[in-house]
Amino acid sequence: MRCEILSTGDELRSGSIVDTNAPYIAKRLEESGMFISRHTCVGDSEDELIDILKEISKRADIAIVTGGLGPTNDDITSKAASFVSETDLVFNEEAYETVKRFFKSRNVEISETNKKQAYLPQGSDVIPNKIGTAPGFICKVSDCSFFFLPGVPFEMKKMLKEFVIPKISEMNGDDKIFNKIESVTLFNLPESKAGEILSPIEANYKYVRVGLRAKFPELQIKLYGTGEIENEVINEVEKAKREVLEIASDWVVSEDGLSLAEELGKLLVNRSETVAIAESCTGGLISSTLTDISGSSDFFLFSGVTYSNDAKMKVLNVSEDTLIKYGAVDVETAKEMAEGARKAAGATYGISTSGIAGPTGGTEDKPVGTVCIGISSESETKGFKIIYKSNFRKINKMIFAAKALDLLRRYILKLNMN
Amino acid sequence: MRCEILSTGDELRSGSIVDTNAPYIAKRLEESGMFISRHTCVGDSEDELIDILKEISKRADIAIVTGGLGPTNDDITSKAASFVSETDLVFNEEAYETVKRFFKSRNVEISETNKKQAYLPQGSDVIPNKIGTAPGFICKVSDCSFFFLPGVPFEMKKMLKEFVIPKISEMNGDDKIFNKIESVTLFNLPESKAGEILSPIEANYKYVRVGLRAKFPELQIKLYGTGEIENEVINEVEKAKREVLEIASDWVVSEDGLSLAEELGKLLVNRSETVAIAESCTGGLISSTLTDISGSSDFFLFSGVTYSNDAKMKVLNVSEDTLIKYGAVDVETAKEMAEGARKAAGATYGISTSGIAGPTGGTEDKPVGTVCIGISSESETKGFKIIYKSNFRKINKMIFAAKALDLLRRYILKLNMN
Repeated sequence: MRCEILSTGDELRSGSIVDTNAPYIAKRLEESGMFISRHTCVGDSEDELIDILKEISKRADIAIVTGGLGPTNDDITSKAASFVSETDLVFNEEAYETVKRFFKSRNVEISETNKKQAYLPQGSDVIPNKIGTAPGFICKVSDCSFFFLPGVPFEMKKMLKEFVIPKISEMNGDDKIFNKIESVTLFNLPESKAGEILSPIEANYKYVRVGLRAKFPELQIKLYGTGEIENEVINEVEKAKREVLEIASDWVVSEDGLSLAEELGKLLVNRSETVAIAESCTGGLISSTLTDISGSSDFFLFSGVTYSNDAKMKVLNVSEDTLIKYGAVDVETAKEMAEGARKAAGATYGISTSGIAGPTGGTEDKPVGTVCIGISSESETKGFKIIYKSNFRKINKMIFAAKALDLLRRYILKLNMN
Repeated sequence: MRCEILSTGDELRSGSIVDTNAPYIAKRLEESGMFISRHTCVGDSEDELIDILKEISKRADIAIVTGGLGPTNDDITSKAASFVSETDLVFNEEAYETVKRFFKSRNVEISETNKKQAYLPQGSDVIPNKIGTAPGFICKVSDCSFFFLPGVPFEMKKMLKEFVIPKISEMNGDDKIFNKIESVTLFNLPESKAGEILSPIEANYKYVRVGLRAKFPELQIKLYGTGEIENEVINEVEKAKREVLEIASDWVVSEDGLSLAEELGKLLVNRSETVAIAESCTGGLISSTLTDISGSSDFFLFSGVTYSNDAKMKVLNVSEDTLIKYGAVDVETAKEMAEGARKAAGATYGISTSGIAGPTGGTEDKPVGTVCIGISSESETKGFKIIYKSNFRKINKMIFAAKALDLLRRYILKLNMN
């Protein structure tokens, strides 16, 4: 089975944006036991698109194509597919139903141009798109099955997971191999170092491959088990997982591949405890990350994003003396912020961040990348100061936020906090 | 002149890492007046590499290839190049000098395996690498000039800029093409509708192509101008941009392609005004989006992420009566939240969100997707209720946040707020 990926769109071709769809698809398909031979990217030129579709149809068995399914004039994928498959572009009732259903769910009037999205090469199978307007489709050219998907990442991902991968596994048929994947989430361990300490594991197993997936600033260790005998695969994956948990114990955040925020949320809910946050340099990122979790209102009470000293004093009750004596970025200030947030919200725990995310604002004493974190409970309030080396604002915000969440997790579990 | 890009390496092919080299090269070359027709990515298989080099040699005039020039066994690019160009792989004295020079500059002993990097296809021209061990080279196959560069981004970038682009410009001679890109950001206009109303524009221009790029929940309109005469391209792009601004005036957020948050920040800074935020359903996303902007402390004072009613009362001074009478998700509550945030922080404006992001928590009266937004200034406080149809928590948070930012922008500019 030869499998290829094709990304289309002028913004990808010209380098205006980086193509993250192709590597995402490659990774998911490889996890499902496929081997990806090649990715190609072309722009919105019909000739170029027809050429590459023809080329792929001659050498591949399966191809995943993204982009160009929208309703506008530069969306030419269906037309090119119909040309290459030598079929007419016909109105597909099933595709139109999915488009209509989407608009209805949004209470929006469907427009004439959206009707264009229901024209597919004759004989295509529809791949339903539940969260966007462009239906996908499967279209066979020579011996190659082309899976056409929209280029919008979250639509593509959902369709890939719910439809394309199961369909490809089904096509694989008797070649069936059993797959079992386990994930462990780590934090605070560089990817290269993780690769080093985990590299000996693979040699101990016949059916297990160890993969690293960066979900910055977290790191997922993936254990991919693949083989013909279900039991053996499961046993080996479980054994390898125990080995990972032991070797990487200092950095393990979740034994089930949950994110740091999800794991902390679970921990708080299980203990019927709550948290309040005081954010300066993370600017709301900690609370936004926590509130991405459905049901977060069970454990998240309040976050005060206090950029100004005035807000720190007024909302979080930080004393003016502390701000004058130590400044806004200091362990003492962070401690008062955490305590203030906890008390203001009546939460079990308070956490705070105050630091310099950059790219400007650093000093010799407190360079860009400096963060002070406070952790407060009813019995005590602790402060921490860490200096990271990045100069990038968004990256620093992400590291600072993760570090604060991890410190609270460690505090609750009475783990080492250094 | 047809130009292609080829990236090599198993970690790219399998999706373990995202290929940022290809879009970087595409962008730089397009800025220099080249048009990139296609990118391809293959792994470390010699057969696959030979195949794609042969294919490219038949259709392209110029190809930039990255990766596989290192000293280890999976670095097979030179070997494949020599096979395809039907020349021997020979020791290149000039290449060896550049490798030696690099090691000397680092005060490191050169190893035998590094000598391998000086073996190039006979007749190749060396592309010196001043900051790494792997020299690049130019090798002609049929009518195509292949530029082989290392895959390490910072080495590749330096060699591209200092050697490859000047060399290609020289080869191009008089064929030079001029490119000009302009961007306009829209909000609240579905992509299909945007395509519809903007589609007539392209026909009016010879050198301008109109592209849409979804940056959810915003939409960028890109005007790509390409032609031989610089003045004509610039004039046409400017004229087309004015046309876009007129046709899409109701939805234009930024005339320079800035994001909604960046545009609002610029507006506030220009007016020396500030904002405070009260967030319920957006959970800190508004403040995190605003504080992603460097210099945001000039206009952003405070955000209270108040999930609990208690926090709404205590921090934002929302009255208990209002909460009892109308509930947390209501225009009246949103108004008091916005006013409370503004006053607590002493800001020029206050904005608030209270709603149901989902997937649970909806009622018949207030379904998932409902958001109430308050906008408060010293002179007045306004409330808005909008019902979106998405069931996805993260998507709703993003739409709610963008809508609140856009309402404040419209309020400040005295634009229509319905």
